[in-house]
Amino acid sequence: MEKKKRTAVTPTRKENFPEWYQEVVRLSDLADSSPVRGCMVIKPHGYALWENMQRALDDMFKATGHVNAYFPLLIPLSFFEKEAKHVEGFAKECAVVTHHRLVQQPDGKMKPDGELEEPYVIRPTSETIIGHSYAKWVQSYRDLPILINQWANVIRWEMRPRIFLRTAEFLWQEGHTVHATAEEAREETLRMLDVYTDFAENWMALPVIKGRKTEDEKFPGAVETYTLEAMMQDGKALQGCTSHFLGQNFAKSSEIKFLDKNGEQQYAWTTSWGATTRFIGAIIMAHGDDDGLVLPPKLAPHQIALCPIYKTAEEKEQVLSACKELHKKLSLLSYAGRPVRCRLDDRDMRGGEKIWDHIKKGTPLRVEIGPRDLESSSVMLGRRDDEDHGKIKLTFDELTSRACDYLEEIHNNMFEKALRFTKNQIRKIDSLEEFEKFFTKSSKNQTLGFAYVHWHEDSIGHPLLEKLKVTPRCIPMEEGSLTGTFESGSCIFTGKPSQKRVIFAKSY
Amino acid sequence: MEKKKRTAVTPTRKENFPEWYQEVVRLSDLADSSPVRGCMVIKPHGYALWENMQRALDDMFKATGHVNAYFPLLIPLSFFEKEAKHVEGFAKECAVVTHHRLVQQPDGKMKPDGELEEPYVIRPTSETIIGHSYAKWVQSYRDLPILINQWANVIRWEMRPRIFLRTAEFLWQEGHTVHATAEEAREETLRMLDVYTDFAENWMALPVIKGRKTEDEKFPGAVETYTLEAMMQDGKALQGCTSHFLGQNFAKSSEIKFLDKNGEQQYAWTTSWGATTRFIGAIIMAHGDDDGLVLPPKLAPHQIALCPIYKTAEEKEQVLSACKELHKKLSLLSYAGRPVRCRLDDRDMRGGEKIWDHIKKGTPLRVEIGPRDLESSSVMLGRRDDEDHGKIKLTFDELTSRACDYLEEIHNNMFEKALRFTKNQIRKIDSLEEFEKFFTKSSKNQTLGFAYVHWHEDSIGHPLLEKLKVTPRCIPMEEGSLTGTFESGSCIFTGKPSQKRVIFAKSY
Repeated sequence: MEKKKRTAVTPTRKENFPEWYQEVVRLSDLADSSPVRGCMVIKPHGYALWENMQRALDDMFKATGHVNAYFPLLIPLSFFEKEAKHVEGFAKECAVVTHHRLVQQPDGKMKPDGELEEPYVIRPTSETIIGHSYAKWVQSYRDLPILINQWANVIRWEMRPRIFLRTAEFLWQEGHTVHATAEEAREETLRMLDVYTDFAENWMALPVIKGRKTEDEKFPGAVETYTLEAMMQDGKALQGCTSHFLGQNFAKSSEIKFLDKNGEQQYAWTTSWGATTRFIGAIIMAHGDDDGLVLPPKLAPHQIALCPIYKTAEEKEQVLSACKELHKKLSLLSYAGRPVRCRLDDRDMRGGEKIWDHIKKGTPLRVEIGPRDLESSSVMLGRRDDEDHGKIKLTFDELTSRACDYLEEIHNNMFEKALRFTKNQIRKIDSLEEFEKFFTKSSKNQTLGFAYVHWHEDSIGHPLLEKLKVTPRCIPMEEGSLTGTFESGSCIFTGKPSQKRVIFAKSY
Repeated sequence: MEKKKRTAVTPTRKENFPEWYQEVVRLSDLADSSPVRGCMVIKPHGYALWENMQRALDDMFKATGHVNAYFPLLIPLSFFEKEAKHVEGFAKECAVVTHHRLVQQPDGKMKPDGELEEPYVIRPTSETIIGHSYAKWVQSYRDLPILINQWANVIRWEMRPRIFLRTAEFLWQEGHTVHATAEEAREETLRMLDVYTDFAENWMALPVIKGRKTEDEKFPGAVETYTLEAMMQDGKALQGCTSHFLGQNFAKSSEIKFLDKNGEQQYAWTTSWGATTRFIGAIIMAHGDDDGLVLPPKLAPHQIALCPIYKTAEEKEQVLSACKELHKKLSLLSYAGRPVRCRLDDRDMRGGEKIWDHIKKGTPLRVEIGPRDLESSSVMLGRRDDEDHGKIKLTFDELTSRACDYLEEIHNNMFEKALRFTKNQIRKIDSLEEFEKFFTKSSKNQTLGFAYVHWHEDSIGHPLLEKLKVTPRCIPMEEGSLTGTFESGSCIFTGKPSQKRVIFAKSY
């Protein structure tokens, strides 16, 4: 019998994926629960990761002509009601502000006072409040396009919250654009989906399937919703971000009109697109292993952890001085367009404990330097993508000249590994029986995956989907290594003709 | 009779300062009103300014050892009540969330539903909610200090809102730190006041008086509050930011305790410090002129506006091509540690209109290039700190080699000008009569200022202050060009001994 390997995280992914997830969040110090129902505290390690994600996305948004702005947190209830499907979609998860002060009761307790004439909803998304400003700002075709993004917090009351994945409050960016034609708005919708794809693949090392949502999975009020779907290590899908072509729906409800070149009044065409702190959950579940977090090098708060090892005060002085020298050199390097983020970890704790701390936190490169290494001007290097935590002996010069190559190699390895896994777990399925079997676990250890099946939109609401808790994730847009070559067939639910296969999965 | 100069802003500062302010905000495209009571929309130009302020402050916070994190927007009412003075101070301006969903009424309208067992307050500041996490995170002296900052939105319900100065929702950063000793916490409080001073003077070009708040002007729950006070062009004071030594008040109400080196349980010592979008109001009112905004070069969204002037298509091609070349060269320059932000403004509008747009928006340097300039490879340069909008002829090479020097000169001129103004409007006053006269306008055009008077804390609540709507702004901490040499005297309100003079003013 194989001896069970000791792991830093208990349980392992195989043993209990949801508990493994919670434990990785805790051990890697990314986030904490809070006393506010469904809300999380993003701890410094998690927030630094988010800051790096923000910076990369923000640079991409600006490179595609967008600017940032900020709109109110609160939305008057009457605004929110203007788009019927929109309010219907969000009504069940709105935090509502009804009072504007507190007064002290005779028993000393405070209670809400100063009831508002019209309640406010804390934004779950900002189409309606931003639409109000756009209606003022847009008068003529010369005012178009408007290409604005907002970094903000939003609240969607969650009954079954899970840290990073479903939290009542989360952080995100929401782009809101206005265009003179449907064609231009559709182009923008797809351009931003490409920006997100670039970010997912090249920054998060995450393979994604680009696709369109089916009618039942669209954003409330959208004409078309596009999405990136990624596979987590339990075979479930995570929707990475969405980009919506809103047609004239919100322009009509917010009265965004303009005089076109012929002097005629027209309703504008709008889009919106967003990515959230949920992406942090995707990084954890796509890349993490049984020893903790594995961070994509371009986004890791620290890409290199320099860990001095010493016992005596004299050793400490010598080792620290060498570390400082190396820290200086490594920090002068540049990777992914920014200075390399190297941490000299001189915390007063045992060497082994410190190394394991960085393993759990997912730092891509760990460098150990002890008194004996100094004699040969060398270090021991550990790579986080090596699950056995092997060490490579390198001279100081080799370390500085190769560090960025290692980071790039780790990025590529992580992407390739996730791609192989995803590919392995996508199954072409051509019958209802097979479909049901695929999504019914025969053993606890069975990993799920994506079913790739022929489909017709009349199958929306099929009882088997409800029973299995499986949904159509997206209608793929491009042929590729995950989606193969498109071919026509017959819907497994209705027998009706299908032009191409669609991804079905259980999802987060 | 002198002919009245035409100005881009009507009314002028002298004619009506508050209306001039609103008009500058509008003409410079910084912000807009919103349909949410007291809340503003920060437009792209205003938000880009805020982003530059954030970046500079954030770099300074990180350089002093702080990291960012994020805590919930909502605070359970019971948490908020824990510190008595704190809740008393904020009770009248709290937005309260009482419901977590909406339901449709028979008439089709939505109304709040799902009443919460305990209401939540939208954070007006986060001491109590962050304190809860800190109580969990701090166990031993080894966990200290905690040096965390948060970038966030807050709500304080405002009955008389003014854009950027008093808005119900505003953006800010709030630092919250925990220390093992009072001394260390006090050091942190003053360190951050120095960081803010550095930022005000060296980034905003704003002279400030560093001081301590009197007892009646302290932050609710603080032991000591420190502040930066700056003079606006109407002689009123604007509190730039604050840094609070909270003693053990919040540690006790949140139970932040630690085992010290001797194994004894101790309450920790905390601080908090914040700067807000109000700083944008300070920039407008300290530097703006009758033609609009004047932006400090280090924070301006664009430091240089390149404006091509042309009539024919052929001219357009030639002029634009020269502009592109110049844009490339200017963008390679570095100022204040970042690449120069140069905008090639090729909007299709009349040359004069475009130039005035940049004057109103406060762009430090405007560069005009027309067909005739091309012949001599030269440009016409306008500096925003020149109120007459004169133009300087420069060759392309002169422009690129001198651009950063001009930016630095503008920064220095702006600082010196504001310093001279402030100095001129600070008056040492030694009697109640003089004090009353100083703060009572004899003519509409009279500019107010700071009264610098001897003072004893028993004068808090003196009826004359209430009558004049004047408050003690701060007890200065350092002798200097604005505060002179400290000297003792007698309080003008009570006749009691006074160790040094204190700044009194009307304020924003």
